[in-house]
Amino acid sequence: MTDTLDPDLLRRMHAYWRAANYLTVGQIYLRDNPMLEEPLKREHIKHRLLGHWGTTTGLNFIYTHLNRAIVQRDLNMIYVMGPGHGGPGPVAHTYLEGSYTEIYPRIDRSKAGMRELFRQFSWPYGIPSHVAPETPGSIHEGGELGYSLSHAFGAAYDNPELIVACVVGDGEAETGALATSWHSNKFLNPVTDGAVLPILHLNGFKIANPTVLARIGDDDLRDLMRGYGYDPHFVEGHEPEAMHQAFAAALDTCLDAIRQIQKEAREESADQAKLPRWPMIVFRSPKGWTGPKVVDGKPVEGTWRAHQVPLSKFETDEHVKQLEDWMKSYNAHELFDEEGRFREEFASLAPTGQRRMGMNPHANGGLLLKPLHMPHFAQFAEDVKTPGDHKAEMTRVLGRFLREVMRQNMRSFRVFGPDETASNRLEAIYEASPKTWLAEYEAVDEDLAPDGRVMEVLSEHQCQGWLEGYLLTGRHGFFSCYEAFIHIIDSMFNQHAKWLKTTRKMEWRPPIASLNYLLSSHVWHQDHNGFSHQDPGFIDHVANKKSEIVRIYLPPDTNCLLSVADHCLRSRHYVNVIIAGKQPDWQWLDIESAVRHCTAGAGIWEWAGRGGDDPDVVMACAGDAPTVEVLAAVMLLREYVPDIRIRVVNVVDLMSLETPDEHPHGMDDDRFDDLFTKDKPVVFAFHGYPGIVHKLTYRRHNHDNFHVRGYKEEGTTTTALDMMVLNNMDRFQLALDVINRVPRFAGEREKATQRYWADIQRHKLYVSEHGWDLPEVRDWQWKAEDAN
Amino acid sequence: MTDTLDPDLLRRMHAYWRAANYLTVGQIYLRDNPMLEEPLKREHIKHRLLGHWGTTTGLNFIYTHLNRAIVQRDLNMIYVMGPGHGGPGPVAHTYLEGSYTEIYPRIDRSKAGMRELFRQFSWPYGIPSHVAPETPGSIHEGGELGYSLSHAFGAAYDNPELIVACVVGDGEAETGALATSWHSNKFLNPVTDGAVLPILHLNGFKIANPTVLARIGDDDLRDLMRGYGYDPHFVEGHEPEAMHQAFAAALDTCLDAIRQIQKEAREESADQAKLPRWPMIVFRSPKGWTGPKVVDGKPVEGTWRAHQVPLSKFETDEHVKQLEDWMKSYNAHELFDEEGRFREEFASLAPTGQRRMGMNPHANGGLLLKPLHMPHFAQFAEDVKTPGDHKAEMTRVLGRFLREVMRQNMRSFRVFGPDETASNRLEAIYEASPKTWLAEYEAVDEDLAPDGRVMEVLSEHQCQGWLEGYLLTGRHGFFSCYEAFIHIIDSMFNQHAKWLKTTRKMEWRPPIASLNYLLSSHVWHQDHNGFSHQDPGFIDHVANKKSEIVRIYLPPDTNCLLSVADHCLRSRHYVNVIIAGKQPDWQWLDIESAVRHCTAGAGIWEWAGRGGDDPDVVMACAGDAPTVEVLAAVMLLREYVPDIRIRVVNVVDLMSLETPDEHPHGMDDDRFDDLFTKDKPVVFAFHGYPGIVHKLTYRRHNHDNFHVRGYKEEGTTTTALDMMVLNNMDRFQLALDVINRVPRFAGEREKATQRYWADIQRHKLYVSEHGWDLPEVRDWQWKAEDAN
Repeated sequence: MTDTLDPDLLRRMHAYWRAANYLTVGQIYLRDNPMLEEPLKREHIKHRLLGHWGTTTGLNFIYTHLNRAIVQRDLNMIYVMGPGHGGPGPVAHTYLEGSYTEIYPRIDRSKAGMRELFRQFSWPYGIPSHVAPETPGSIHEGGELGYSLSHAFGAAYDNPELIVACVVGDGEAETGALATSWHSNKFLNPVTDGAVLPILHLNGFKIANPTVLARIGDDDLRDLMRGYGYDPHFVEGHEPEAMHQAFAAALDTCLDAIRQIQKEAREESADQAKLPRWPMIVFRSPKGWTGPKVVDGKPVEGTWRAHQVPLSKFETDEHVKQLEDWMKSYNAHELFDEEGRFREEFASLAPTGQRRMGMNPHANGGLLLKPLHMPHFAQFAEDVKTPGDHKAEMTRVLGRFLREVMRQNMRSFRVFGPDETASNRLEAIYEASPKTWLAEYEAVDEDLAPDGRVMEVLSEHQCQGWLEGYLLTGRHGFFSCYEAFIHIIDSMFNQHAKWLKTTRKMEWRPPIASLNYLLSSHVWHQDHNGFSHQDPGFIDHVANKKSEIVRIYLPPDTNCLLSVADHCLRSRHYVNVIIAGKQPDWQWLDIESAVRHCTAGAGIWEWAGRGGDDPDVVMACAGDAPTVEVLAAVMLLREYVPDIRIRVVNVVDLMSLETPDEHPHGMDDDRFDDLFTKDKPVVFAFHGYPGIVHKLTYRRHNHDNFHVRGYKEEGTTTTALDMMVLNNMDRFQLALDVINRVPRFAGEREKATQRYWADIQRHKLYVSEHGWDLPEVRDWQWKAEDAN
Repeated sequence: MTDTLDPDLLRRMHAYWRAANYLTVGQIYLRDNPMLEEPLKREHIKHRLLGHWGTTTGLNFIYTHLNRAIVQRDLNMIYVMGPGHGGPGPVAHTYLEGSYTEIYPRIDRSKAGMRELFRQFSWPYGIPSHVAPETPGSIHEGGELGYSLSHAFGAAYDNPELIVACVVGDGEAETGALATSWHSNKFLNPVTDGAVLPILHLNGFKIANPTVLARIGDDDLRDLMRGYGYDPHFVEGHEPEAMHQAFAAALDTCLDAIRQIQKEAREESADQAKLPRWPMIVFRSPKGWTGPKVVDGKPVEGTWRAHQVPLSKFETDEHVKQLEDWMKSYNAHELFDEEGRFREEFASLAPTGQRRMGMNPHANGGLLLKPLHMPHFAQFAEDVKTPGDHKAEMTRVLGRFLREVMRQNMRSFRVFGPDETASNRLEAIYEASPKTWLAEYEAVDEDLAPDGRVMEVLSEHQCQGWLEGYLLTGRHGFFSCYEAFIHIIDSMFNQHAKWLKTTRKMEWRPPIASLNYLLSSHVWHQDHNGFSHQDPGFIDHVANKKSEIVRIYLPPDTNCLLSVADHCLRSRHYVNVIIAGKQPDWQWLDIESAVRHCTAGAGIWEWAGRGGDDPDVVMACAGDAPTVEVLAAVMLLREYVPDIRIRVVNVVDLMSLETPDEHPHGMDDDRFDDLFTKDKPVVFAFHGYPGIVHKLTYRRHNHDNFHVRGYKEEGTTTTALDMMVLNNMDRFQLALDVINRVPRFAGEREKATQRYWADIQRHKLYVSEHGWDLPEVRDWQWKAEDAN
C-alpha cells in the first residue's frame, strides 16, 4: 500500500466519501427522517424507488479524490461522468461543496435542506435521476450513454489550462461512439489545448449483464488502452483504505505526467507538438460498493443486482432494518452536525469558489461565451446582376466566409467534418487553418498540422461530440456533413436538443452558441454516389423537436446561404440546420435581395412569376434544386400556355410555414394567405420528403389546394434531372401539375399529358443513350421576360 | 520472402489480379474500345468519371487470394467488403469467375460483354459505383461505412462451416460502429458458429485525410488488435511478388489457426467453449496500388489523391496517353483472348459453382430461408372476459411466446438487445436459451452461456449489425430496444431499408425474413428515467421509407401484441416496428377479438363507445397508453354529458390511415369514412408526435376535423398521468377537447373549461404532495355500461 495520503487526510477524505455516499442512499430512498434521528420506518421511505446506486459510489470516490488534487495543485478541472445514471453522486457532492445551495437556495445546508435534497430526487417536479442540465458542474446529460470522452475532449480543445476528468463507464465503453472516441487524443494539441484524464470505471456489470471490458483480463485491457495510445494505470480492489491510497497515488502519477507532457510540449511552439502518450486510469471497484452485500440471500454488492435499487419491497421490517443498518454504516452524525450541516473538518477539503467542480464556469459555458468577431458576409457575395445570369458553387463561397470567421476567432471557433470538408467544397477554410493532426506524418500530407483547427475524423459521432463539448464550454462551431449520413447522430442531436430545451428555462445557465449544421452533398447532388447517399430525412427528425430551439434553412442560392450562415453563427441556443448543395448552379438574388428574402423567411419572387396579384397558380419551392426545377417549369409553362399567370414563392426558413403559435418564425395567417392565396392551387416543390410540408401547413386556409412534390425514396446513380424525374419533381411533371390544377386550362389537360409523356420519353431516351456524357437538358438558362 | 506459392501459381494469381485491376480501370474510365484494340481516344473515355479507384486494387488482391484458399481447402467462404466504395472490384471478380454473367446474361464473357460491363458502371440505368445489392456475393451495401464486421459476425452465427472474410477499411475503422464491433468475438461460439477473418486494410488515406489506424505505428496497432482479442498478422509492402507470397503465407497461417481453433473447440461441447484468440490480418498496401504514380507532377499512388479517379481532365492528349499506358501495364491481351474471354489458364484458378464467392448462397440469404416453426400464439393469450377486467404486462407475455419460438428454432432464430431484454421484461426467453458470452465468467453470473442465443451488448449498432448479417444470410431475428435509443441506429435502418427496397425488385435475390423491432420502455413508460429516455420519433423516421417495406404497429393490449408479433415473425422483406409498453396496464380484447382487430388494422370499439351509428364525436387512439387515456376520457364524459354519443376507434396498424395508393395497408376512403365519419369531430390521442397523423390523413374527407394530441417534447421525471398532462393528452384535456368540438354541447363549454382547470389543479396538487407515493388517479378501472 502506498502512503500518498497522510493518515489524517485519509481519514477526512474517507469521511467525505462516506458523506457523499450517505447522501446518495438518502436521495434514492428517503422522503423523511434524513438524519435518521428516529428509527427508520416504512413511511420515511419513498414508495417508488428510482435511481441507480451501482455506479454512484465509484463516481463519488473519484470526485473526492479529484477535489484533493484540485486543492493541492490549484487545478482548473471539470468532471464529465459517462455513467450519468449515477445522478445522485454529483448532486451529493455539489451539495457538500456548497455549489448546490448557491444555485438552489431552497436546498440549504440544514436538516430541512437535506430532507428536501432527498425528496426532490427522481420525483415529480423534482430533479431527474440522471446527471442532467439541472446538475451543477455538468456538461454531460446522463441517460443515453457513449459521448463522455468526445464531450471531454471538446471541452479541452483551446482551453490550455483546463483538465477534464472523464469517467468512462464500462457499459458505456461498449457503445460505438465511445469505442472510437478514445482516438480523440490524436486531435489534441498539448500546447494549445487542455488535458483529458480518462478514468475507465470497471464495476463489472451493466443493467443485467457483465461488461465486455471488465471480462477480458488485465493483459488485453492494457493492450487495448496502449493501442488507443494511452498509458494505463490500474487501481483495483474494494478495501477503502488501500483503495484511497492506490487511487491517490495513481492520480498523482497521472497529473504529474500531464504536467510534464504539457511542460515539455509548451517549450516548443504549437506547430511542433507531438502526440504524447497521455496517462489514463483503469479503476476496478465493486458495483454498488459499500452497499448491501446480500439481499434475500442473493449477492448484491459486486453484481448487476446493485445497478439500480439494491433493496426494495419494504413490506417486511427486515428490509427496513437492512436499509437503516446500511445508512448507519456511514456514521452520518460523525459527518453532519446536529443542524444537518456538513462538518467543517471535512467540508474544508473541498475547493472553493470557481475551483469547485460544481461552480467551474467551463461547465456552464454561457458564462464564458463571447460573440464571434464577424467579417461582413456581403464581401463574399456573388455578383448577380439579373437572376440566373451565372452559376456558382454555393458551399465554395461559404468556405471563404468561414475562412474569415476562422481567421478572426482563432481560439474560439472550430469547423468539424467527417472527412468531408473539402468534398463539401469548403476548403478555403484551410487558408486560415489546416486540419488538426497529432499522429504520424508522411511527406505527401497536405493541410495537416498539429495546431490545425479544422477537425476531421471519419466519425460523425466524434464530430458531433467534440462540437457539443466545445459549445457547452462556451465556444462556437460549425459542422458540415453529407446530408444522408447526418442521421448517424440523430440520437446525439436529440440529446443536445433536450439539453437546450431544458437549459433555456434555467436562469443560472446563460445561453450558449447554437449548434450549426451545414448539410451538403445532399439528396439531389448525390446522383453519382447513388441511393446509399440519398436521404433528406434529418429535416423531419429536427422538426419534431421544440420549436423554440430548432431552425431549418433551405437557401436557394449562394447569397441566401451567406445571409443564413451569418445569422446562424450569431444566434444563441438553437440547433440550426442549413441545407445547401455544392454543385455549380444558377444564382438568383443579389446580396441585398437575399438578405431581405432570408429575413422574411419566405417571399414572392416577382421577377420569376408573371401576372401580378391574381395568379392562376402558386408555384412554391424550398431548397436549391427544387428552386431550379420550379423556374424551369415556369419557362416551359410560358411556352405551353403563354397567358398563364404564375406566382413563384420561395421558402428559405422552413419553419415560417408553421403558425406563429407553433413556431416563433411562423407567419401569421394573413401573411400566409398573401403568399399562397386562400384558394388558388399551390404546386410545391420541396427538397425533402413531401409529407412535412403538409404537416406544417395543415391548418392553413388554402391547405387543401397544396400539392407537394419531393423526394419519395427513388434514388439511384443517375443524372440530376433524372433524379427529379424518378421522384416526379421534374420540370415536365411540375408543368403538368400546374395545367392539371388550373381550371381555365381544363381544355389543355389532354394535350399537356401527351406532351408530358413525350417529354419524359425523350428524356429517358436521352439518358439511356448519353448517360453523363453530354450536357443534359438541365443545363439551361433562366431568361427573364417582361412581367405581364 | 516466403514461398507459399509456387512460381507458376504465383504467376497465374498475379495475372488474375491484373485482370481484375484492368476491369476495374475499364469500368471507371471506358465507354468503348474495352480491349484497347485501337489507340485510346478521348471519345472512348466516359465524360463524367465516377468511382473509387484507391481501395479497389487491395480488395481485388484479397479476392484473388481468398479464391486460392477456397479452392485449395474447399472452403465455404463469403467476402464482406467494408470499403464498399470499391464497387468495381467485386464486379470485376464476379465477372471473371462467371457469377456475374450467370446472373446478368447481358454482360457476357466477350468483348461486347466487357464493353457493356464498362459502360454500365456508375452510369444512369446502369449499376451503382459502390458495392450494392446488385453486386453478386454481397450482403453489405457500400456507401455508408462502419458495419462490415457486425455484418460479418451476424453472418457467421449459427453457420459453423462458414468463414466470413471481412475487409475493414482504415477510414471505416474510425467510425463508432466499427470501433466497437471488434468485440464481436466475445459473442461467437467456435463450436456452433462459423469464423470471421478480419482483414484490416490500411491504405493510409480517406477521401482527403490520412487515417488514424495507418498512422499510429505497428506497436500501438498490434496492441490495439491484441486488446480487441485478436492475433494480428502483418502484411506490408508494395512489390507485387513479395506481397503475394507474404499475403498467401499470412492467409494460410490464419486459416490453419481457424481450423485448429475450431477443431479443438469442437472436441468439446458448445457449452464448454472458450474464447479463442482468433487470427486477423493487417494489410498495408498503397492506396491506388498499380495506378498512376504521378499525375501533373503530383504524387498519386500512395496518397489520398488516388481515392476516387486518379486521372481526369482529358482535354489534353497527355492524360489520354497516361491512361492508355496505365491500362496497357496490365497486359490485357495476355489475360483475355481475342474474343475478350478470360483465358482458361487463369480462369481455372477460381472456385466453381456455389464455392464462388459471387454464388455462395449465404450471400443471398433468401435462397436458404426456411419459415420459422411457430407455436400458436393464442396459447399465451391473456384471459380477458370483459374489456378492462384486469391488468397485464404486455411484453412479459410476449416473452413467453418468444421463448417458444426460440425453442422451436434453436439454430435459426436469435433475439438481440442492448442490455435491455430483461428490462423490457422479455426474460422468459432465458428459459429457452441464456445469453451468449465467451468472455470471462464470475460466480454471480446468471443466464449467460457460451452457447446462449440471446445477444446482448450495450451497443444498438452491434445489435442491428449482427441482426442484419443474420437476416441477410437467411435466418430470423427479433430486436428489442428502448424506444428513445433506437434512434442510435436510424442511419443503419436507412441503409437496410434501402437494401430491402432495391432487392424487392431483383428476382435473383429471393425475399429474406423481416427485421422486427420491439420498441418498449417507451415515451409514456419512461416517467422514471425522464426526458433523456423519451422520444417516439422513430415512427416518423420509418414512415418516410418506401411503403412497400415498412410496417408500424401500435398494439393497444397484450393479445393484440401477440397477434401482431406472430404476423411480423411470419412476414418477409419488411421492417416491422412494434411499439408496446412493459408496465402493468389494462387489457381490452380477448384473443379472437384481438386477431380480428389486428387483421383489420383499425376498427370501432363498439363496447367502448355509446350511441351507435350517429356519434357526436369520434375518439381515436393509437398506442397502449393513449388508448387507456381515451377510455378514461370516455368515462369522464359519460359523467359530464351523459347523453353524449361517442365512437371509439382504435388504430393498431398505423399505415392503415394512409390511402391505398400510398401504402398497401392503407384503407380506402369508404372504409376510412365509415370509421372516422365524413364530418364529425375526431379527437385523436396518438402515441408519438402528432404531426404524422396529419401527414397520413391529410387527403381524407374528414381531415379538417381531426384534432390530434400526442407527445410534444414535454418530458421529465414524473408520473405516467402527469406525462400525459404535460403533453395535453390527459383524460381531462381529451374530455374538454370533445366538449369544445361537439356543437350541441356549446352551452357546456364554459363549465367544462372551468372543470378542466379544477381537475388539472387538483392533479398538480396531488402530484406535488404525493409524487410517486400513492396510487395515482390513473389507477382506475374501466366500467362497461350498456350502450345506448
